[in-house]
Amino acid sequence: MHISANDPARKSFVHVPENSDFPIQNLPFGIFHTANNTTPRVGVALGESVIDLAALAALGYFNDLGLDLAVFTSETLNAMMRYGKSGTRAIRNRLADLFDAANQDLQGNKEHVEQVVLSQADCVMHLPVQIGDYTDFYSSREHATNVGSLFRDPANALFPNWLHLPVGYHGRSSSIIISGTPIHRPKGQQKPDDADPVFGPSKLVDFELEMGFFTYEGKPMGESITTEEAEDYIFGMCLFNDWSARDIQKWEYVPLGPFLAKNFASTMSPWIVTLDALEPFKVASPEQDPTPLDYLKFEGDKSYDINISMSIAPENGEDTVVCNSNFKFMYWTMVQQLAHHTVNGCNVRSGDLMASGTISGPTEDSYGSMLELTWRGSKPLTMKDGTERKFIQDNDTVTMRGYAEKDGIRVGFGEAAGKILPAK
Amino acid sequence: MHISANDPARKSFVHVPENSDFPIQNLPFGIFHTANNTTPRVGVALGESVIDLAALAALGYFNDLGLDLAVFTSETLNAMMRYGKSGTRAIRNRLADLFDAANQDLQGNKEHVEQVVLSQADCVMHLPVQIGDYTDFYSSREHATNVGSLFRDPANALFPNWLHLPVGYHGRSSSIIISGTPIHRPKGQQKPDDADPVFGPSKLVDFELEMGFFTYEGKPMGESITTEEAEDYIFGMCLFNDWSARDIQKWEYVPLGPFLAKNFASTMSPWIVTLDALEPFKVASPEQDPTPLDYLKFEGDKSYDINISMSIAPENGEDTVVCNSNFKFMYWTMVQQLAHHTVNGCNVRSGDLMASGTISGPTEDSYGSMLELTWRGSKPLTMKDGTERKFIQDNDTVTMRGYAEKDGIRVGFGEAAGKILPAK
Repeated sequence: MHISANDPARKSFVHVPENSDFPIQNLPFGIFHTANNTTPRVGVALGESVIDLAALAALGYFNDLGLDLAVFTSETLNAMMRYGKSGTRAIRNRLADLFDAANQDLQGNKEHVEQVVLSQADCVMHLPVQIGDYTDFYSSREHATNVGSLFRDPANALFPNWLHLPVGYHGRSSSIIISGTPIHRPKGQQKPDDADPVFGPSKLVDFELEMGFFTYEGKPMGESITTEEAEDYIFGMCLFNDWSARDIQKWEYVPLGPFLAKNFASTMSPWIVTLDALEPFKVASPEQDPTPLDYLKFEGDKSYDINISMSIAPENGEDTVVCNSNFKFMYWTMVQQLAHHTVNGCNVRSGDLMASGTISGPTEDSYGSMLELTWRGSKPLTMKDGTERKFIQDNDTVTMRGYAEKDGIRVGFGEAAGKILPAK
Repeated sequence: MHISANDPARKSFVHVPENSDFPIQNLPFGIFHTANNTTPRVGVALGESVIDLAALAALGYFNDLGLDLAVFTSETLNAMMRYGKSGTRAIRNRLADLFDAANQDLQGNKEHVEQVVLSQADCVMHLPVQIGDYTDFYSSREHATNVGSLFRDPANALFPNWLHLPVGYHGRSSSIIISGTPIHRPKGQQKPDDADPVFGPSKLVDFELEMGFFTYEGKPMGESITTEEAEDYIFGMCLFNDWSARDIQKWEYVPLGPFLAKNFASTMSPWIVTLDALEPFKVASPEQDPTPLDYLKFEGDKSYDINISMSIAPENGEDTVVCNSNFKFMYWTMVQQLAHHTVNGCNVRSGDLMASGTISGPTEDSYGSMLELTWRGSKPLTMKDGTERKFIQDNDTVTMRGYAEKDGIRVGFGEAAGKILPAK
């Protein structure tokens, strides 16, 4: 077939409910297993189904792509990602054609269809990538301004470097978990005003509304990736809730940055939406003034119009959406982040994760953390059950959702949910 | 045999030159290959030899230890380390006995000895561990005081949190390299006083004299490792030069910490000296005032008397030792660092690396960085060839060395060397 995998006219013979995050134009990658076959393997979401790529490969549907088919029975996507953009693009394009309603190649073989199309309800999702290094940026101007206003000085909210470079720092890979994994409230040192530090459960557990991107294997150490090349090194994106303990953070973070306040957990969505699938949703990012240095300049639209929200559900209670933001509010783009990260010769590897930092929008209901939404606890939010929240309480479930929509096509990310259990 | 692997009376039938870092009381682990057998595999240093553990395993010398012998033909030590302290201790004890001059088990079989005892000169060393997460602490009081005095206020050099917790932050794993790997001078943004930021090669490349420790697999996420348990989760130590670009650092590091200033490279020594081998060199760490919170308290001596030095050699020139420090100067101990790191439930994995931060001593010649040694460039150091150094110049080779010595036994770390090439 010679039509784009993203063509809005494509329909799949696999049922896709209205408003599904996973039409045939999406085809995001993940790792799953089933009760019948407990081997973790590569899958792709389509409607309410999971396509079993290991089964498709075993049936010969990828034979001409020149891939080692063992990559589909790997516990992570890293092996598949080592084929780079051309490799993963070829796989996605093949899937778009195979599952197109107009194509009988697979559709015509009911036995094969049964083997490869599984119900999402029967699939247990795994953390899809062995994450080597995790970097967190701080690229939302509204967020940096809000935090600067709250903790320092509203008149000088942004630090001098902020408009000149995408500020970032290294985070913790070991505690990145998949949606649905519960988290114990972290304990740590906090410093009451005018008293010695004390130890105990954090009282100010917060979410951070972020999105992350995964890299392909980059260039050797000592070389850099330009903004022009950067998209070739980005596999895809996920939802990312970078849990934070504000009281621990406040006491520990000067001068070397957040540490225990962040590294107890970060929750990601199970499906990685490829940059290819997001291509139709490209939009301009905010104008940059001052003009950045040459190595940070780029041409064309490099942001994406992705609606993202966070909601809180008390134990056995209903979800209350507490913020609606959008990825397009990000001041620094992913291509700038990757160019900056490697400009000193730092190497990136297949499976490295870079997150956006909290994405706050211009309006008060688009702020990406409780810290900002409640303005440091001074304006509590009211849940549907009438209870109030300044920060996250024990047994609250916090759920991030996200999707892009255009021309009647909705390409979504599913959700990244986590429940805060009491401290151990 | 029933004598300790550390017994000073032990001699090996393998020749160990005087002042070797690697007597039979050491037996540090690494990964190597040879021209004859290019499979990376586990080795142990002994004198000027490398013991091939894969060969020993194949000959049956580990058969009764209950280990999967495939761990010795792994590209990294991670698989072996998954057996925990009891596993690696059993291997080291077995080696101490097998290579003891008083034992004929191996010594008596010349053919076996030839197969397992290789010349270090014939071995190419590899990065020994697949490092999951790398954490850098900031645990030398003298270093933190010097940096605080240089960049802020000598009267208030330490930040308020410094004496209450071991300040740490996450670093970059991907760019940790083995001794001997050259590094290109990093490029990045620098901010001249009263001018806009500029882009170019760093002018202030520095070393940081550190030591690192590797963890075994820790407890599940949400649980903590106490100071009392911590040693059971520490495999061993290495030399660690955490290269830094001071001009990049100064502009980027507020408020989230160092990023590009550090993540272009860190150089480690190829051999990991076990905590078991260091046991005879235990000493007290500096008294802590104020008394730390309960979770940071510990009993007994938890530091080690390890001499560490850094030297600089210009291109084709002689080594000039520029600092002599000691691990025992560290204010916060490794057991406190690990307890702090996990007190919030953060999990550590087999192969995670935690570094000390720059270890400066009380005297000016024991400072662990050029920043401190030259007092920000104001007191240049003179090399043996008469040239001066404020920071590291292109084509300089910087070499870290370290050893512990007591009762006539020297347990050393070899070296961690790196040459700074011109910027690309």
